[in-house]
Amino acid sequence: MELIKEIKTMQKISQKEALGNKTIGFVPTMGYLHEGHLQLVEKAVEDNDTTVVSIFVNPTQFGPEEDYEEYPRDLKRDLDLLRERKVDYVFYPAVEDVYPEGYATYVQVEKGTDVLCGRSRPNHFKGVTTVVSKLFNMVRPHRAYFGQKDGQQLLIIRRMVDDLNMDIEVVACPTVREEGGLAMSSRNKYLSPEEREAALVINQTLQKAREWIEKGERDGWEVKKKMEREIKAEPLATLDYASVVSRENLQELGEIKGPIMIAIAAFIGSTRLIDNVWLEVN
Amino acid sequence: MELIKEIKTMQKISQKEALGNKTIGFVPTMGYLHEGHLQLVEKAVEDNDTTVVSIFVNPTQFGPEEDYEEYPRDLKRDLDLLRERKVDYVFYPAVEDVYPEGYATYVQVEKGTDVLCGRSRPNHFKGVTTVVSKLFNMVRPHRAYFGQKDGQQLLIIRRMVDDLNMDIEVVACPTVREEGGLAMSSRNKYLSPEEREAALVINQTLQKAREWIEKGERDGWEVKKKMEREIKAEPLATLDYASVVSRENLQELGEIKGPIMIAIAAFIGSTRLIDNVWLEVN
Repeated sequence: MELIKEIKTMQKISQKEALGNKTIGFVPTMGYLHEGHLQLVEKAVEDNDTTVVSIFVNPTQFGPEEDYEEYPRDLKRDLDLLRERKVDYVFYPAVEDVYPEGYATYVQVEKGTDVLCGRSRPNHFKGVTTVVSKLFNMVRPHRAYFGQKDGQQLLIIRRMVDDLNMDIEVVACPTVREEGGLAMSSRNKYLSPEEREAALVINQTLQKAREWIEKGERDGWEVKKKMEREIKAEPLATLDYASVVSRENLQELGEIKGPIMIAIAAFIGSTRLIDNVWLEVN
Repeated sequence: MELIKEIKTMQKISQKEALGNKTIGFVPTMGYLHEGHLQLVEKAVEDNDTTVVSIFVNPTQFGPEEDYEEYPRDLKRDLDLLRERKVDYVFYPAVEDVYPEGYATYVQVEKGTDVLCGRSRPNHFKGVTTVVSKLFNMVRPHRAYFGQKDGQQLLIIRRMVDDLNMDIEVVACPTVREEGGLAMSSRNKYLSPEEREAALVINQTLQKAREWIEKGERDGWEVKKKMEREIKAEPLATLDYASVVSRENLQELGEIKGPIMIAIAAFIGSTRLIDNVWLEVN
């Protein structure tokens, strides 16, 4: 396994692999890897000749009041985990190389980015689509792997890839959960034991919503209201949103129908967590 | 020479060429080709194994009051001219394939795009950088050729290519001029004989400005004022702007120094024309 820090070196490697007709699988991460990331990595290794994992805590997707500085980092542990999974290249560029002085270009999906997480995190998805575009141009992957846990992000990246005619297959992988159902996240590290227990309300509420819908509920506002009530009943939780949206355009649904996503974001103590469930509703 | 209309077909061809280690030269155009385009094409043919010319009148770079519908088109003539120059592929995608229903993604350079042409044509450069990004992903060129006549466009595309880490060499080619010095443009077709004569004032003013600076003038506002006076003295001309800007950030210069661009945009009758001169000033 090779650790690559220079963008130009990464591009040369990708070029050489492409000339050799090798497929490149790519897993972009912000590091501090958990089992969710590792399942993406294992799938990439399985599907492709060459696997590249990037570790880059991207400043442009954090708001000014958010946890960019405190975001957990542990490169040595990450490298050990990736070496075990037989990753070929770990790409670890420096912030000042990714965003040099005078940097001015942004990639933006203008639909579905101002709702759900985009409402409380303005410019978050603009930062995400910009850095993913850049990483795609550095790594030139055939397939890129994203977790379903960041459901809105996944749908927005799919839209960007389609819209900009990037010749890349976006592979979605199921959310990996801790015991009790809490979705794995690098931010779970922030939780106290009591908060970790309280955080279970998020997935439990999603599962209840799934059941309501599976039993025939088709009123999106009713499901939303009942989910809000569940989250608010947990004293350590502060609701950001609970929504039933279309997976086609991320808009909230009055009538539940088609490919949908049920999504919740809530602060548990001061830690913001998200989770979602996907359903096909006839 | 092959005419390609399907995006997927274009991508397959590019992929095959890349696998064969062939370099691709790319000239994006809106068609209605003149000698300026053809010099870009000849340079691309000379520099590369394979040359692709796209013809696509891009709706997103025209304002609502602009000449998108009336923009001159003559595919048959264009194809004849390109065949003579030994172009390998002409890429001619349909608008509804480039911007399908639900399209939502834009690439935007956020510095230097609200000045000069960007002031009177809001969203113009957003349309340009978006379509060029898309075409780059369709054609996957090693080198892309742009005319210096659209100086601001060239500098903005360079910034985008650098910022987004596109592994593409942007080649700038000198402005080609008609007799008398009028910069070649597809829009020159709109000019009556009197207007064509009047349009010479644009380049003549640029040449005067160059002389003033070469003779030692370093006050950007003074050069601007004198250029404005020259254009206003032509009864058929309506000034849009006359500016001395830095080529590094496209900002107007009070003190003329470094790599500069002297640029003018003016309506001659109802036809908007642009031209510019580049200088290195110590």
